[in-house]
Amino acid sequence: MVLDAMGGDHGPAEAVAGAVEARRAHGVPVILVGAEAQLSRELWRHGAESEIAVVHALHAVPMSERGAAAAALAGSSLAVGCDLVRQGVGGSFVSAGSTGAVVTCAVRGLGRAAGVLRPALAVALPSLRGGATVLVDAGATADPSSAMMAQFAQLGAGYARSVLGRADPAVGLLSIGSEPGKGNRLTCQAEELLAALPLRFAGNVEGHDVLSGRVDVIVTDGFTGNVVLKNVEGCVRTVLAMVAREGVAAPEQLAGVARRYDPETHGGAALLGLRGTVVVAHGSSRAATIARACVVAHTLSGAAPDIKAPAP
Amino acid sequence: MVLDAMGGDHGPAEAVAGAVEARRAHGVPVILVGAEAQLSRELWRHGAESEIAVVHALHAVPMSERGAAAAALAGSSLAVGCDLVRQGVGGSFVSAGSTGAVVTCAVRGLGRAAGVLRPALAVALPSLRGGATVLVDAGATADPSSAMMAQFAQLGAGYARSVLGRADPAVGLLSIGSEPGKGNRLTCQAEELLAALPLRFAGNVEGHDVLSGRVDVIVTDGFTGNVVLKNVEGCVRTVLAMVAREGVAAPEQLAGVARRYDPETHGGAALLGLRGTVVVAHGSSRAATIARACVVAHTLSGAAPDIKAPAP
Repeated sequence: MVLDAMGGDHGPAEAVAGAVEARRAHGVPVILVGAEAQLSRELWRHGAESEIAVVHALHAVPMSERGAAAAALAGSSLAVGCDLVRQGVGGSFVSAGSTGAVVTCAVRGLGRAAGVLRPALAVALPSLRGGATVLVDAGATADPSSAMMAQFAQLGAGYARSVLGRADPAVGLLSIGSEPGKGNRLTCQAEELLAALPLRFAGNVEGHDVLSGRVDVIVTDGFTGNVVLKNVEGCVRTVLAMVAREGVAAPEQLAGVARRYDPETHGGAALLGLRGTVVVAHGSSRAATIARACVVAHTLSGAAPDIKAPAP
Repeated sequence: MVLDAMGGDHGPAEAVAGAVEARRAHGVPVILVGAEAQLSRELWRHGAESEIAVVHALHAVPMSERGAAAAALAGSSLAVGCDLVRQGVGGSFVSAGSTGAVVTCAVRGLGRAAGVLRPALAVALPSLRGGATVLVDAGATADPSSAMMAQFAQLGAGYARSVLGRADPAVGLLSIGSEPGKGNRLTCQAEELLAALPLRFAGNVEGHDVLSGRVDVIVTDGFTGNVVLKNVEGCVRTVLAMVAREGVAAPEQLAGVARRYDPETHGGAALLGLRGTVVVAHGSSRAATIARACVVAHTLSGAAPDIKAPAP
């Protein structure tokens, strides 16, 4: 798999440390993309020059850069990384760059998988029952059609099977009532399409089911999904802060729950439906999170472990 | 104000106790609608027969009944209550019936206020900073136009002024990026309209701002708003359950925070934009919550305290 070593808030040192961990602890083959001299120096510090290949890229896409502006930055580590995946050098791509920039670059650079109308972002959220629920689309396609949402359901079910190990995942459609026919126009149309798919459709679910663990996959449009994802993060912060403020528990005692919903921890968002899997790690990711994102990307791509590094 | 004494899970006893509390503790004039003999008996137990008028209604709308089916139940306490408000007997209406049924009955029975395109449901959610943020629309209009959303902003700002006492409330538009122009088509159109309104528009806000207290009012469509409202309730439950499970704090120590976000506590949802204010209390409301909903409805309607009871 290919790792953008220039994305994220903490720079190449954390990315390289993450790559080394993915390689050594999980056997994931990694190709780093970025400023070659700097990356080689970091690899040397880990004694990993012979284990991990480096492909040079002129510059990083700034974290503030988004959408079209970012995609226009040819020669960036994002563009070069996507290009390597397109060429079949690596089966998947990980970046801790800004989600908007990664999504735009990946869609342009990789193109959509055969038959896929639009990509979707999948995020696995820890649930009350102990497992995780895949929220899809968490923000790649803000205005999907119902047909696109039916594909999101299939992409999300695939993610639940390969990453979460659910043989026959239950898929719910996020709406405003559990009865059939409740929702806005888009959701009502999507409901009919989902019911006809060859997957275990559990019908409509509601906002309180996002963390309840009632289903394995929750399908929604990218606008609602992104609002919900950020709402979960905000709610967890607020509730824990209120508990701490009441003096019931010290903040450090609440760190376990906080960490479970820290966007840095939940493994990153997977951009599904492209010719090559892309995982967007959070901008604040440290080495361990980068390593986890590499493992998820590698699992999703099903890439054989003998990926060849390109000629230097 | 007019109170549907038959709505809700706990029946007339709690409704009557709430009416008595609203009357005695807050000076709110109340007219009860429901099974007359039963209500008179409950009033007699409180010694309040001379303080609170009763208007008979044949039957209650079952909690399971929704939408058109509920509205068709002429002679129900919901229909009679709305009719009293329409006739100007009471300036506002409170019911703990099912939200769908109350909204449908109220829209049909009261009609929209002059110039209002569609009603919106407003809910005040406690925020991290100690105050509350008004989420509007929390579920009345699932497919609004951008023009309707601009009206939701004005209705929500009015609520923040009269119920929360904010002289010049800051209004944010819920979207998937704080920069201008981020969002789905509907939100981008609404953003332009909101920016042109004579209110303090704070621009786009995101999912994590729902409880952060960054703005006083958050405007969204009724689909997204309802998903977010239920997501907040679900997140609070999940996070507190996880904290309790980790053994950091006992469930009873967490009850304070739980109560703050219990749908039974946050005062009910106000249906704005009709000819007469309607407050939907949660189905599980007990007397104190009913009383609070009566006070909110009375405040919103600005009704004079000398509402006349209709001739028996």
